[in-house]
Amino acid sequence: MASNSSSFLGHRGFGIRPSKSSLPPAWRSHGICQCVAAPSEQTAYNTKVSRNANMAKLQAGYLFPEIARRRSAHMLKYPDAQVISLGIGDTTEPIPEVITSAMAMRAHSLSTVEGYSGYGAEQGDKNLRAAIASTLYGDLGIEETDIFVSDGAKCDISRLQLLFGSNVKMAVQDPSYPVYVDSSVIMGQTGLFQKDIEKYGNIEYMRCTPENGFFPDLSTVPKTDIIFVCSPNNPTGSAASRDQLTQLVQFAKDNGSIIVYDSAYATYISDDSPRSIFEIPGAKEVVIETSSFSKYAGFTGVRLGWTVIPKELLFSDGFSVAEDFNRIVCTCFNGASNIAQAGGLACLSSEGLKAMKDVVRFYKENTEIIVDTFTSLGFNVYGGKNAPYVWVHFPGRSSWDVFAEILEKTHLVTTPGSGFGPAGEGFIRVSAFGHRGNVIEACKRLKQLYK
Amino acid sequence: MASNSSSFLGHRGFGIRPSKSSLPPAWRSHGICQCVAAPSEQTAYNTKVSRNANMAKLQAGYLFPEIARRRSAHMLKYPDAQVISLGIGDTTEPIPEVITSAMAMRAHSLSTVEGYSGYGAEQGDKNLRAAIASTLYGDLGIEETDIFVSDGAKCDISRLQLLFGSNVKMAVQDPSYPVYVDSSVIMGQTGLFQKDIEKYGNIEYMRCTPENGFFPDLSTVPKTDIIFVCSPNNPTGSAASRDQLTQLVQFAKDNGSIIVYDSAYATYISDDSPRSIFEIPGAKEVVIETSSFSKYAGFTGVRLGWTVIPKELLFSDGFSVAEDFNRIVCTCFNGASNIAQAGGLACLSSEGLKAMKDVVRFYKENTEIIVDTFTSLGFNVYGGKNAPYVWVHFPGRSSWDVFAEILEKTHLVTTPGSGFGPAGEGFIRVSAFGHRGNVIEACKRLKQLYK
Repeated sequence: MASNSSSFLGHRGFGIRPSKSSLPPAWRSHGICQCVAAPSEQTAYNTKVSRNANMAKLQAGYLFPEIARRRSAHMLKYPDAQVISLGIGDTTEPIPEVITSAMAMRAHSLSTVEGYSGYGAEQGDKNLRAAIASTLYGDLGIEETDIFVSDGAKCDISRLQLLFGSNVKMAVQDPSYPVYVDSSVIMGQTGLFQKDIEKYGNIEYMRCTPENGFFPDLSTVPKTDIIFVCSPNNPTGSAASRDQLTQLVQFAKDNGSIIVYDSAYATYISDDSPRSIFEIPGAKEVVIETSSFSKYAGFTGVRLGWTVIPKELLFSDGFSVAEDFNRIVCTCFNGASNIAQAGGLACLSSEGLKAMKDVVRFYKENTEIIVDTFTSLGFNVYGGKNAPYVWVHFPGRSSWDVFAEILEKTHLVTTPGSGFGPAGEGFIRVSAFGHRGNVIEACKRLKQLYK
Repeated sequence: MASNSSSFLGHRGFGIRPSKSSLPPAWRSHGICQCVAAPSEQTAYNTKVSRNANMAKLQAGYLFPEIARRRSAHMLKYPDAQVISLGIGDTTEPIPEVITSAMAMRAHSLSTVEGYSGYGAEQGDKNLRAAIASTLYGDLGIEETDIFVSDGAKCDISRLQLLFGSNVKMAVQDPSYPVYVDSSVIMGQTGLFQKDIEKYGNIEYMRCTPENGFFPDLSTVPKTDIIFVCSPNNPTGSAASRDQLTQLVQFAKDNGSIIVYDSAYATYISDDSPRSIFEIPGAKEVVIETSSFSKYAGFTGVRLGWTVIPKELLFSDGFSVAEDFNRIVCTCFNGASNIAQAGGLACLSSEGLKAMKDVVRFYKENTEIIVDTFTSLGFNVYGGKNAPYVWVHFPGRSSWDVFAEILEKTHLVTTPGSGFGPAGEGFIRVSAFGHRGNVIEACKRLKQLYK
């Protein structure tokens, strides 16, 4: 390899790998990043570029690498333990062949003259946009050109924040997917973190608890520019009803706000709850909806999602929100991978839809097993019906303590509720993604621990 | 499909596609976005969310969709014309099979229990990071953990801007890849566009012309926080020498600046020019290097790149730049597609390197043909030797006029130099990506036009 590299790259030789740096071992081990914000020891040279003050506001690493770090530490401590993760919502089951064959075929076609293509449209492959519009929004008046295909909802959230800029104020559910708050901090929309209340300044946290059915009491929510809502909800598992979403759309309309609606778990809905907020009349004038193939098709590693921005959605000066997002997408992005997009198209074929349904049903069965387990142990259990997350109440206890207790005593990874916001304190999120055997074993251990 | 979708998604029926919106036809035709910033006609409802003032600063659509729009208009006007594009730097030749087979195999593996994986590390697959470090930076003291794998350099530029925040000032080469300036505007680092000089306020434009060998005279460049340099250069095709880069590193060190070095075209270098700025002693304390598989491996649609942030690079307070970028990557991104990464690993195998070399040689041969053509016509021609871009001088002429003339009279798409900055005025960029037959035909037409 070395000689080929040399000729490929020029006259540079290839020598011995340099000695390891002086960073703490955790930085380099297991490929897991140590995202803790601690200044490096002083070395000989600092640039004169000031660190971005918004980055300095962030309290700790992003939640899931933190969990991963603790998991790694645990595995070092108990090298023989069979650690099972019901923590990060990471899919575990193979992708149906109808979908992977399409991706393999697309990969092969890139080696042919007829099949090769370079840059795709930044908004996504035309056929895929059309398929998303017609298959998932067909009767809701959403068109192909309202769809922006992406490499996933997490990435879209940050592009939406870039779109909005730093002079907007957000409201989020509390608890919520940490990316909404963290991206708002990074974008400079927030004030400092207030340790006593565990909230950043200038974000409105809309408390979601068992008492209000995990839907905010909008009569107590001040006006903000942007409102992030996720339904079915990560982490509480609760799906908003048609009535609740109708209220929400009206609330946004009354205040002139824009709702960013994250529907990544819509396929997990078991009842009549709306799959898309665009089922609500008037939503097109106030909503951006983002979604993902991650939890539909096991595309967590493949990377594919989409955002819907209706033409009817306008800024206060009448300018089209979609036009500005299009400019963001053309400038800050270069399209989702063409191979992933071929997979997306296969997902939306009738065979693909059927196959995805089976995988989703598998995870929903896992969810039932987990719900039954905690219920039988006498816990108050929420979620699970319309989402692959189970939200278990441990009243009066610190969720990080419960997390640590479960990890230490049963070798199970869960997610502490306070990682999602202060109203998550006292709750644990258990995700239902896992091999059936692992889920059953995990529940056995939990029954042992909490019997 | 409809009935399966209905059962997949619930009780929602699927009706007839709604009527077309009232947007101008160009918005909906050919899947090409019309990125022009013009307010929509007043409809019944505007939200109260102010448009991001930074977006309003942008003068027009991103450059290449603008070119695409003109090309589309031209094709409507001349439906039988054989339009050949030597405009956007879009690869055209098939990806070598050793690489696509690896991607196809990875796709298939996602359908197996042993092969399936979900979320990858946001920083990239460990093996790929290691391969990039050892194969491309092996003797330069760059380690696996300094490498952040991405979905491409264009996307990384915006994540770097998010990292830097709005309170930094950039210097760019003039002319330069439009993403550097546009992303700076979007991030709020700049002032308004000054039409008389065709520059945004608060950016330092470092003029690069034939007179200074397309390398800025650093003695005339004021201090800025960030300095964007691309070498080999898009659009001028010029590669910086070891001396020039040594000066640049010293300049950054004297000023405490951070260089963002875009080496996406390094494989096109024919002479002794450095492939990586890390060949320069001291660079690790002042440089971030970004690169891409796009022009190496035809991955423009597959989407894969990387950014190197040495551990030695520190903010003024001693905080590690890589730690903050890692936080950005963990929060605003979810990793490059696992299938694309499998392709990247195959690219860096000895067989893959050999195969990529052949493709790059093909494009370099195209470049020679183009250089010879313009030279034989008596033009002053730049670039071409170390890059797939040829920078042709049309002294005294407006580059958009020359672009239009070439398009109208020869049905060839090129890129007007002023699209890359005011010092690009009077130049046309001709890219060398194309099927050999098209490149030969294009040159024939140019000879006809300019004989």
